[in-house]
Amino acid sequence: MSQILLSYGSGGKLTHQLIREIFIRYFDNPILSQMNDSAVFSINGKVAFTTDSYTVTPIFFPGGDIGELAINGTVNDLSMMGAKPMYISIGFIIEEGFSIEDLERIAMSIKKASREAGVEVVTGDTKVVEKGKADKLFINTSGIGIIPEGVDIRGNNAIPGDVVIVSGTIGDHGIAILSQRKDLHFSVEIKSDTAPLNRMVEEMIKVADIHVLRDPTRGGLATTLNEIAQSSDVGIEIYESEIPISPPVENACNLLGLDPLYIANEGKLIAIAPKDKASKLLEVMHKFPYGKEAKIIGEVTQEHPDIVVLHTRFGSHRILDMLSGDPLPRIC
Amino acid sequence: MSQILLSYGSGGKLTHQLIREIFIRYFDNPILSQMNDSAVFSINGKVAFTTDSYTVTPIFFPGGDIGELAINGTVNDLSMMGAKPMYISIGFIIEEGFSIEDLERIAMSIKKASREAGVEVVTGDTKVVEKGKADKLFINTSGIGIIPEGVDIRGNNAIPGDVVIVSGTIGDHGIAILSQRKDLHFSVEIKSDTAPLNRMVEEMIKVADIHVLRDPTRGGLATTLNEIAQSSDVGIEIYESEIPISPPVENACNLLGLDPLYIANEGKLIAIAPKDKASKLLEVMHKFPYGKEAKIIGEVTQEHPDIVVLHTRFGSHRILDMLSGDPLPRIC
Repeated sequence: MSQILLSYGSGGKLTHQLIREIFIRYFDNPILSQMNDSAVFSINGKVAFTTDSYTVTPIFFPGGDIGELAINGTVNDLSMMGAKPMYISIGFIIEEGFSIEDLERIAMSIKKASREAGVEVVTGDTKVVEKGKADKLFINTSGIGIIPEGVDIRGNNAIPGDVVIVSGTIGDHGIAILSQRKDLHFSVEIKSDTAPLNRMVEEMIKVADIHVLRDPTRGGLATTLNEIAQSSDVGIEIYESEIPISPPVENACNLLGLDPLYIANEGKLIAIAPKDKASKLLEVMHKFPYGKEAKIIGEVTQEHPDIVVLHTRFGSHRILDMLSGDPLPRIC
Repeated sequence: MSQILLSYGSGGKLTHQLIREIFIRYFDNPILSQMNDSAVFSINGKVAFTTDSYTVTPIFFPGGDIGELAINGTVNDLSMMGAKPMYISIGFIIEEGFSIEDLERIAMSIKKASREAGVEVVTGDTKVVEKGKADKLFINTSGIGIIPEGVDIRGNNAIPGDVVIVSGTIGDHGIAILSQRKDLHFSVEIKSDTAPLNRMVEEMIKVADIHVLRDPTRGGLATTLNEIAQSSDVGIEIYESEIPISPPVENACNLLGLDPLYIANEGKLIAIAPKDKASKLLEVMHKFPYGKEAKIIGEVTQEHPDIVVLHTRFGSHRILDMLSGDPLPRIC
């Protein structure tokens, strides 16, 4: 069989065949292979638990695909609480007629991403809907991570005097997706930055008492900073000249009239930490491939609580609001 | 606004508004309301972790809706490991143009079902896809439960001599959904049996060393018994005359040429336990509304391992195979 049939979602023989031949084959581990209604394992301590559904289109894009994105996204959501990501669940909703070859390609990519992040897919679910009732493939990943003792990283922990660090160039993921949708041909191919940030975070929390970590996905850097400002009831000031943006992304944004501060990232983080730990933090981040361009881009202030202010390259400043409207639906 | 727009999935202002005005409003609890990238709580011991996506159509049906089904389904998957369900994540994939009134109705139903089962929705995610790219609303629920010390219930634990108990009438959910799809009008309205089984399971595991628990959802009683037989490498024999089926479901199955043994249930369980504990177990089950028609329907045998045999009402017997094909897609 080369295509997914409705019967693959029936719970009967074909569902078992699909699970055995694709999911168990690629994701095999002692917990998953027990094939019970739930995965069973032991945990002691503080845990983080998160969920995300992925509806990105196209499902294969420069720099990654929906499978890798689904693993990295959930790994990063756990990491943003300082947790060590451990266990992942995967739920597939597949459109009838979807290619089994593409499903295997995605399963392989999930396997590779799980291995890089050091997590295990321990439980899953597959549903199939009629042709035209879903767009190819949607994936939900939920995840559980363990928070090391003493770590307390939360969106409402930012305090005046803290620095704002970003781990690298912004806007790459959103522009990579957009380039595929509009069939735009830039002179340089722009790749998604999808990446697991957990190993870098693991080292970061060893050297500094980080107050807030967030990955600026949907809504981009500007929206995420607004969430932090509101949650912590502080002001944030950032400097346009300090924000790392790759020249191809900057050119694409200029061409398309988009503001890179609102474009999604899938392998970047914002860290808010005490100023006196900033150089130590940057030193650690620069050692990792996903943090080698990390920079301080601003600071947390007592003034203008709940408001993010951008100091432009031209010396002026303006309020940076949350995203309103949606320039790029189904980016993740 | 009366309809979901693409911008509600942007991660920006409208997403925050939707989360605040619907999800936080209905599901509010101290963990969820922190609005971090992950929910944080403490756990000590053995846990069960499960995921399920729900694509049922229609989303409102006699006896329930997709929201209630999503909570009960995940609560039951955890219960089938003997776990006490605790924390639930919800991921919505919503089709552009979906009615906000219907979304609120579903949120209310999720709230009600969570309360009945005693679980909390602690984290969530919302994606919106363009009109025609999904069918109204899909929901993923993942869940975490705590397994009490000493409890070890697994699909591969059945042993010869055990009895097979079913908690009540079979086929109700599948036929309730089918009645809506084909616009069939039966003289008696058939309602879905969607229900949380955790409180009954909690008492059951106190009185007997249960070997296997399973909820016969997709694929029905026959498929689930086959899974258990294969997993435990035992034979199973069941008696048609002992299997509880409500007369309206039996009539509908006759009319439609369907075998109720393959029809989905959403509020029933199969328990496999030592014979000498059977009467004690039934006594406990009969005290619960969702177990008052519990019955012994068969036994586990050493003969014909991996095979389920049905003794018919007419004194003959035949092999009962797993579901092949799919008589009823999108039943859950």
